[in-house]
Amino acid sequence: MTSLSYQPRSGTFSPAPADSSVHDVDTAAREALAAAPAVEATAPAARAGWLAAVADALDSANGRLVEIADEETALGVNRLRSELERAAESLRFYGEVAAEGSWLDATIDERNGARPDLRRANRSLGPVAMFGASNFPFGFGVLGHDTGSALAAGCPVVVKAHPAHPRLSAALADVAARALHRQGAPTGTFALVFGYAAGAGLVTHPAIAAVAFTGSESGGLALWRLAATRERHIPVYAEMGTVNAVVVTPAAAKVRAEEIAAGFVASFTLGMGQFCTKPGLLLVPSGSGLTARVGSALQRATPDGWMLTSGIADAYSEGVRRLLDAGATIVAVTPERTTGWAAAPAVLAVGPELLRVDSPLLAEVFGPVALIAEYRSDAELHAVLDALPGSVATGVQIAPDGDEHVAALVQRLSRKAGRVVVDGWPTGVAVTWAQHHGGPWPATTDPTATSVGSAALSRFVRPVAYQDVPDYALPPALQQANPWRLTRRVNGGRSA
Amino acid sequence: MTSLSYQPRSGTFSPAPADSSVHDVDTAAREALAAAPAVEATAPAARAGWLAAVADALDSANGRLVEIADEETALGVNRLRSELERAAESLRFYGEVAAEGSWLDATIDERNGARPDLRRANRSLGPVAMFGASNFPFGFGVLGHDTGSALAAGCPVVVKAHPAHPRLSAALADVAARALHRQGAPTGTFALVFGYAAGAGLVTHPAIAAVAFTGSESGGLALWRLAATRERHIPVYAEMGTVNAVVVTPAAAKVRAEEIAAGFVASFTLGMGQFCTKPGLLLVPSGSGLTARVGSALQRATPDGWMLTSGIADAYSEGVRRLLDAGATIVAVTPERTTGWAAAPAVLAVGPELLRVDSPLLAEVFGPVALIAEYRSDAELHAVLDALPGSVATGVQIAPDGDEHVAALVQRLSRKAGRVVVDGWPTGVAVTWAQHHGGPWPATTDPTATSVGSAALSRFVRPVAYQDVPDYALPPALQQANPWRLTRRVNGGRSA
Repeated sequence: MTSLSYQPRSGTFSPAPADSSVHDVDTAAREALAAAPAVEATAPAARAGWLAAVADALDSANGRLVEIADEETALGVNRLRSELERAAESLRFYGEVAAEGSWLDATIDERNGARPDLRRANRSLGPVAMFGASNFPFGFGVLGHDTGSALAAGCPVVVKAHPAHPRLSAALADVAARALHRQGAPTGTFALVFGYAAGAGLVTHPAIAAVAFTGSESGGLALWRLAATRERHIPVYAEMGTVNAVVVTPAAAKVRAEEIAAGFVASFTLGMGQFCTKPGLLLVPSGSGLTARVGSALQRATPDGWMLTSGIADAYSEGVRRLLDAGATIVAVTPERTTGWAAAPAVLAVGPELLRVDSPLLAEVFGPVALIAEYRSDAELHAVLDALPGSVATGVQIAPDGDEHVAALVQRLSRKAGRVVVDGWPTGVAVTWAQHHGGPWPATTDPTATSVGSAALSRFVRPVAYQDVPDYALPPALQQANPWRLTRRVNGGRSA
Repeated sequence: MTSLSYQPRSGTFSPAPADSSVHDVDTAAREALAAAPAVEATAPAARAGWLAAVADALDSANGRLVEIADEETALGVNRLRSELERAAESLRFYGEVAAEGSWLDATIDERNGARPDLRRANRSLGPVAMFGASNFPFGFGVLGHDTGSALAAGCPVVVKAHPAHPRLSAALADVAARALHRQGAPTGTFALVFGYAAGAGLVTHPAIAAVAFTGSESGGLALWRLAATRERHIPVYAEMGTVNAVVVTPAAAKVRAEEIAAGFVASFTLGMGQFCTKPGLLLVPSGSGLTARVGSALQRATPDGWMLTSGIADAYSEGVRRLLDAGATIVAVTPERTTGWAAAPAVLAVGPELLRVDSPLLAEVFGPVALIAEYRSDAELHAVLDALPGSVATGVQIAPDGDEHVAALVQRLSRKAGRVVVDGWPTGVAVTWAQHHGGPWPATTDPTATSVGSAALSRFVRPVAYQDVPDYALPPALQQANPWRLTRRVNGGRSA
């Protein structure tokens, strides 16, 4: 199949790497399976070295990679340069998390009377099939959070290139393959395949032990359903786009209206709204004047940029139309570009009584559109919050000196989301130990999983208990001498 | 629908609680949902008090409960008495784990330059639908590991009674409901429903947030598939029966043959082989004489008992027939009882070349039958181990002074199992911090999940990250004053 690399600014195209054959996919999966024991047996600190080497190589290649990425995504060189720097930092972070070793959850209960010696540690699941997102070609791309955390957790990775940036994918894979090879990582530790059929072939390949995906709900659920047809079922971690609601309290609206309006517009139009953490719904007090202020803020901001693919541009227009058909009305809209894959940023108003379970108004529209609803009472606000589907993030804007209802509101919001932000906007996702980037269905296919932060490794391991196994036959994490110097739980208590 | 309580010793029956109506199921699920915030908000140490009160009530009612259990299961009063004592102990253990608080995984990254304050802790998923097993009416019954760990993790539980012990289920639920009420647990914390339709109604009820199941592969997969039809997908943790292989090394066979033969027979016939951890396949060195010794050991042991239900007794006969049809031959068989739901314990021999992927010889037959295969080389042994499906447990019998290949063998066995036992038998499952009772598909529907041990709580929680949330609005686990005195990870390091 002939493959093409498109430029969103013009809609023009150039040749891209050809789709992988069935044989290529099978080879990649088999080589990953063959490499799995050696990748797992490599000490986590050594795998941290692999990841650091890849990160260094990305830094060295920053200029060249950003150039290709900007051609294929039109996200702009400044944004892409810093995204790539952060992606390299994230790889180092996952290496540090691997070396620290808490993800192994090493737990030892020594023999006690008739009770046997029991020791448990996590082991690596095996080859991971990775599907990156269109909107973060570095952060959630070929060498993004999923690949970094899977390698950190001792799993080989086979990436399916995103069709929105095939040339960049090939360049990233080349950088990674060279760096891993120089580090002595086994053949099969990392591979890249191209094409829709290759993706389906990976998900159903017997050698694949887990699937990681970031992208649309339709794409994630399609992979999830495909994986469910396997003879041997495997975990599928899909992180999907959601409507992320932000509540403005009456006290906040009184004193911070202008700042909130500007912040909301900046957040939902960032990268032309192509963020899974985009705040898609602002719930404001009725009569606060915030709806008009947000409209003015959008007119002043005149956000500018392109959509990532022609499909996304088309889906955006259709999505806005669907919102209008469902009862939303236009507050403000800015002019659409006349070149390339364009979209017109817009703010729509909607009555809170329309925001009910299964309403099309509560389905994500990917791109620079957001809804504002004015609530007239706490009861009306709570009814909307209870109707929201699960989301990746949510937030509340409060008064500077605290609001009496904030604790209850945070608690209510946390029932439906993976992250609750106060006085900020959900679009920024810090890469730290405490981060959680996930959430209840349909934000993800597994509410316990995160694709960012230290806990991202946990998706790619499973525990094994060893009963009365002699020390010389135990994995290093559980040996008496503790060669990896882990903090372990011994007989119920922590010990270094 | 008229419901009946059967006695395995005679096949006779008496009336049992009627099947729950659609209305009953809906009420139970809604009350559980209404109770969920209060159950979660109860301090874990207070929930530990609830569990201890239920445990004390079980101890007080031991005699009466064991009597009913013995009528309905014919497992014998000695076994049942100690199973109930252990079940009470397990509830106390899950309470201690709840109070210790590691399951909350409280993690704090304080503000650092432009990076926001991020705090993450697990929160309770919500109402859990619990399906117990026939073979452990206490340990995996109405108040077994799943109920104990779900309540410990702050989730209300709605139990679907197992049809093999409806009167016992009602009695256990009554004990629990009274104890929980005395402790001040909210209405809806715990409920019991009866009947097949009630179970299906629970799994598809919008209020249910997770499903826990212990039992057969067919039962577990049916619930898993049913749950996959839900609009909002939820986790289904099914722990299912597997063939649990045990390897005897040549060195072990030389010096410990008699002990191994006797131990194997005792383990696979324990409780008439009605254990999900039954060692269903012994892999012995060719020419070691172990096959004949196991046959003699079975003849000497003459295990005696009943099957739990007429369905299980029928499935056992059919299962043994299937093994024989697939090429197994009889080594020894003991006489079958002539009363009640009987089964004839048997040892069958099979050529290792028949033990291939998808062979019916590698599908569990629930009951007192086991296979022995004689391997002629390491290559032949490894081919069998590689063909094994995932299992809950596995093991190896080694020589007293160590065996050169043990480390590699343990490593190979751990690829396919949740627990590896050396020189013991898998049927005993200690309840400790380090235990793991689960395993790769088809042992469970989630290879990361355990239904026994401290990590059992993790099935019923999900993380939430709080970004820049003021201290007064944070959950207690993340507040600066650390009111629950948790060991937390702060800025990447552990602190008490």
